[in-house]
Amino acid sequence: MDFSTIFLPELLGTAMLVLLGCGVVANVALPTTKGNGGGFLMVNIAWGLAVFAGVYTAYSTGAHINPAVTLGLWANGADFFPGNEELGLPAIEATAGNALVYILAQVLGGVLGAIIMYLAYKKHFDAEAPAADKLGVFSTGPAVRSYGWNTVTEIIGTFVLVFVIIAFGYTPSGLGPLAVALLVIGIGASLGGPTGYAINPARDLGPRIAHALLPIRGKGSSDWAYSWVPIVGPVIGGVLAGFAGSVLL
Amino acid sequence: MDFSTIFLPELLGTAMLVLLGCGVVANVALPTTKGNGGGFLMVNIAWGLAVFAGVYTAYSTGAHINPAVTLGLWANGADFFPGNEELGLPAIEATAGNALVYILAQVLGGVLGAIIMYLAYKKHFDAEAPAADKLGVFSTGPAVRSYGWNTVTEIIGTFVLVFVIIAFGYTPSGLGPLAVALLVIGIGASLGGPTGYAINPARDLGPRIAHALLPIRGKGSSDWAYSWVPIVGPVIGGVLAGFAGSVLL
Amino acid sequence: MDFSTIFLPELLGTAMLVLLGCGVVANVALPTTKGNGGGFLMVNIAWGLAVFAGVYTAYSTGAHINPAVTLGLWANGADFFPGNEELGLPAIEATAGNALVYILAQVLGGVLGAIIMYLAYKKHFDAEAPAADKLGVFSTGPAVRSYGWNTVTEIIGTFVLVFVIIAFGYTPSGLGPLAVALLVIGIGASLGGPTGYAINPARDLGPRIAHALLPIRGKGSSDWAYSWVPIVGPVIGGVLAGFAGSVLL
Amino acid sequence: MDFSTIFLPELLGTAMLVLLGCGVVANVALPTTKGNGGGFLMVNIAWGLAVFAGVYTAYSTGAHINPAVTLGLWANGADFFPGNEELGLPAIEATAGNALVYILAQVLGGVLGAIIMYLAYKKHFDAEAPAADKLGVFSTGPAVRSYGWNTVTEIIGTFVLVFVIIAFGYTPSGLGPLAVALLVIGIGASLGGPTGYAINPARDLGPRIAHALLPIRGKGSSDWAYSWVPIVGPVIGGVLAGFAGSVLL
Repeated sequence: MDFSTIFLPELLGTAMLVLLGCGVVANVALPTTKGNGGGFLMVNIAWGLAVFAGVYTAYSTGAHINPAVTLGLWANGADFFPGNEELGLPAIEATAGNALVYILAQVLGGVLGAIIMYLAYKKHFDAEAPAADKLGVFSTGPAVRSYGWNTVTEIIGTFVLVFVIIAFGYTPSGLGPLAVALLVIGIGASLGGPTGYAINPARDLGPRIAHALLPIRGKGSSDWAYSWVPIVGPVIGGVLAGFAGSVLL
Repeated sequence: MDFSTIFLPELLGTAMLVLLGCGVVANVALPTTKGNGGGFLMVNIAWGLAVFAGVYTAYSTGAHINPAVTLGLWANGADFFPGNEELGLPAIEATAGNALVYILAQVLGGVLGAIIMYLAYKKHFDAEAPAADKLGVFSTGPAVRSYGWNTVTEIIGTFVLVFVIIAFGYTPSGLGPLAVALLVIGIGASLGGPTGYAINPARDLGPRIAHALLPIRGKGSSDWAYSWVPIVGPVIGGVLAGFAGSVLL
Repeated sequence: MDFSTIFLPELLGTAMLVLLGCGVVANVALPTTKGNGGGFLMVNIAWGLAVFAGVYTAYSTGAHINPAVTLGLWANGADFFPGNEELGLPAIEATAGNALVYILAQVLGGVLGAIIMYLAYKKHFDAEAPAADKLGVFSTGPAVRSYGWNTVTEIIGTFVLVFVIIAFGYTPSGLGPLAVALLVIGIGASLGGPTGYAINPARDLGPRIAHALLPIRGKGSSDWAYSWVPIVGPVIGGVLAGFAGSVLL
Repeated sequence: MDFSTIFLPELLGTAMLVLLGCGVVANVALPTTKGNGGGFLMVNIAWGLAVFAGVYTAYSTGAHINPAVTLGLWANGADFFPGNEELGLPAIEATAGNALVYILAQVLGGVLGAIIMYLAYKKHFDAEAPAADKLGVFSTGPAVRSYGWNTVTEIIGTFVLVFVIIAFGYTPSGLGPLAVALLVIGIGASLGGPTGYAINPARDLGPRIAHALLPIRGKGSSDWAYSWVPIVGPVIGGVLAGFAGSVLL
């Protein structure tokens, strides 16, 4: 197990992802912000750029910052990180222990990022707003609640994410982290309509835990009833994509 | 003929294209989605990124994912795919048999992608909405119906697509699939006003077939009367661009 | 003089620029198009991508596709095109004769691109709309008419364009034509408010000539009284940037 | 001290940044411009592209164009600019004298850029508009005034900026200035809601000085009471990121 090698970069990378990702939802959804009502495209683009910043932050671990990616690469039979001789970065093998460290760091990173986001938007969380809007800054929720179909949507979205990331590996393009960012913008715009595209259990569970812990003014339920969907869907989608990638690509 | 080499990547790549491309229209046009009313620019950007994901998916065939590209390259006198020694990918010659495999895979990929898109948005297709809006998620239709002028618009849009793709070949930029994605965003914003820029027969016919087959709630006609325009226009435009590229570039 | 080397690429590149650039304005401004009311950002992005497509089209001449760039490079003391051994492209010297060929091709390309754009949007030009809106698809016009200050705005915008293009030459980034496209998007969003950022005499004069010639339904004046501003401003701005670049960069 | 090496590029680069950055706010906020009401995303994108243009302009000094970057790199223990043998650019050491030259040039560049922006939008500043809107074109202001929390927001935003810029240095991506531009777009969309993301003391102080000096019609207070927040916050955030980067990356 490579605890020290993996833990910190994945924690920081996922925190960066969630800080910027949940941040744009705060900007669009909370009252009196400058980006209030900024629209879905703005949210998509900023989530993509949140991935961009998160991937650079976690460059030394292959920047999974998403348990569905970790599990998808495992299913694919790839290393978690092939290493990089030029940058002096060691390879990281796909083992159960390493997977556990990745995922633990990602979820804790999600909590951390959401807390910092809360501090950045403190005065706007203090303002009057529907409790559902405040929860929506942290975690995803369905447009039409239907646990089965919501899970299907998350499976499809995460399949696309992990499958195309694996395809990137076959065709180096020089775009690096930008390619993943663009992919996430596309998935968000195209498949985010029904469930708000968690496509990442840490992105949803981490902030949901933060929502439960933080003393947010006028907050309501953390909607734990839905919380398993953005975990189970992405895990299934990621693992399916890992297997599919090893057969089809 | 290289059936096995060509068929699967083109099928998957076109399915990816249509899943994400029709997905954004569903997100913008169907009721109660999170991206409802997201605007034309969001649709343009997501279709571009759909191409981006589709091109990576079909990297081993040159990623035509569009019969107008296949026929345009044929008219241009280029191989369908020059191959890539570094990636160990064989060249694919421009022959009638190979063209047939490309196009068959593309149309079937369009059907497949549309079906998966339908599943991702199932609960929103179940909601009340005008039949024309539901068809519009699958296939293109004209803003002002005029078969002649609609065909002219599709010819011009597809000419730009194929002509500039051929120009890319003369000036490698390192952007790879991103260059095509940006081109499609531009064509959509600039020339998509009259007909919704099919510029790809498989992108229109495949989903139209899916629309006819799927048990969509409250669906109306699949508008077969218009269906030839986004086939004939792009084929003419692509072939003209192939010839023009061989003379002018 | 390199008539044959320069004329055709610059003609086609500028036609591509104007087809896509004026196209997005048609899409946003003409009645019943799918992009109607799409907003200023959509116009900015599409003009940037119009440059992107135009630059690839005219790759063999250095892709000026703008008299202000041609004159700015001349003032800078650079060649019109340094040539490219790898691509087998010859250098093009900065001479009065060559400058004339560039500019003539650019203006004619602007006319050609505008005519093709008109054909793509024929049914929407046939619809009822204010004559000023129809002219606005072809040529720029001021938000507040003030020939002096409008010229100042065009000088500043074109200075930024040509100065930063010259700076690109000092720091190769691998982005190629995308860098120019992004720069044009930025200039449009930031400095396009008062005059609609012609920043290119051929982009304005060519389509204005097309507007005067074409049998557009219900068209009004071509506003020749303003036509010198988007010529004189960009020429001054481009030449100043050329000189400034040779001293300051 | 390398006065002549540093001063001019940083002055010009920051002027370019502020010209284009404040320009988009003018376009969106001043009356009767073509981009009026263009939205927060348009502002974000254009500020990112303003950075893009500014970084190319100041390529020979490492393009800080931001005192928080200068101080952050200093805290990080990096050179101000490692130099570039291929481009024949000398390295610039991190010393107190050099830092002073960087910062002085940046603030003066901010003044200069704001004055040119004012000239480009002269007729729109002459129009009737709330004094606060006119100030908002120049300098940032809080959505909810709370000096403490506003400072926290600026610390967080600038930390992200400088931390990820330092991370870029560990993983060359070929994107160059585009990577910084994308980062700034993301920070703006995600963390710009409460304070309008100064994240750069020169970007705020320079234009505020210009606002105080210029004979703007109907202008009100330059809000000096708030002016320390977008200086102190970014400086703290940048220095913290510099230290954090040396420990964590």
